[in-house]
Amino acid sequence: MAEIIHRIGVKGSSEKVYLALSTIEGLARWWTENTSGASEVGKTIEFQFHGPNGKIIGGFIMDVLKQEPFKKVQWRCTRGPEEWVGTEIVFDLKQEDDFTIVLFAHRNWRESSEFTAHCSTKWAVFLMSLKQLIETGNGKPAPRDIKIDNWN
Amino acid sequence: MAEIIHRIGVKGSSEKVYLALSTIEGLARWWTENTSGASEVGKTIEFQFHGPNGKIIGGFIMDVLKQEPFKKVQWRCTRGPEEWVGTEIVFDLKQEDDFTIVLFAHRNWRESSEFTAHCSTKWAVFLMSLKQLIETGNGKPAPRDIKIDNWN
Repeated sequence: MAEIIHRIGVKGSSEKVYLALSTIEGLARWWTENTSGASEVGKTIEFQFHGPNGKIIGGFIMDVLKQEPFKKVQWRCTRGPEEWVGTEIVFDLKQEDDFTIVLFAHRNWRESSEFTAHCSTKWAVFLMSLKQLIETGNGKPAPRDIKIDNWN
Repeated sequence: MAEIIHRIGVKGSSEKVYLALSTIEGLARWWTENTSGASEVGKTIEFQFHGPNGKIIGGFIMDVLKQEPFKKVQWRCTRGPEEWVGTEIVFDLKQEDDFTIVLFAHRNWRESSEFTAHCSTKWAVFLMSLKQLIETGNGKPAPRDIKIDNWN
């Protein structure tokens, strides 16, 4: 089993960071503008990604497993690229100094591949978009996301 | 054993990317300005990091294990934070479309910790600095690096 892990510190309250992780509107402001569904535990969220020409280039459906206010959000991927199906994504929040620390993990990859490496870098860039959203009011969600390689 | 992996694609020749990875001058333009030593196989490179006030906040010494022109650079960390000592860092290059793909791995972490998560995000940001250096002429090496959390 492989996993991707990241750590960012956001200058902002854990309430604000939690809202950006636990609501459809919040997620749409840093990950992908095309976020829909319902974010309560037991519901599903759909994330779609569009290319510059508006065509869908991919997407994920996540079951919401946990929502613990200001502390934790956890999902399981039930549809998407086959490498993602069955993997889990966790955001753990805590306070340190003036920062809300986000400990991110994308767990249960069956193997570590070049695609995993791509997703690792891309997650880092999206988490920096989350940081920017809270600190400046403007994230960089898809399709305005920063491109990292020839895949996206 | 844990590992950090990333993938970036640089719009530029593998020769240019290789020079940025295999020479002291190149490394100083995207990772840390305070890079010294000799980058030939069997030699050591010293990377120092300074805070905004000019004080040293940390550093690493790497043994150069491999330099395969335009294809691969590999180091082993021999001094630095204890979690890093004994770990290996590999950059593998290949061509795809108009991109030089950099497959990055930081291997042999004894365990996966919060510090590993920090380093994973920080590596992504530095690899984006390498991409920016080749594509625009300007990287963001320390101490002008993008801060990701309360640790750096």
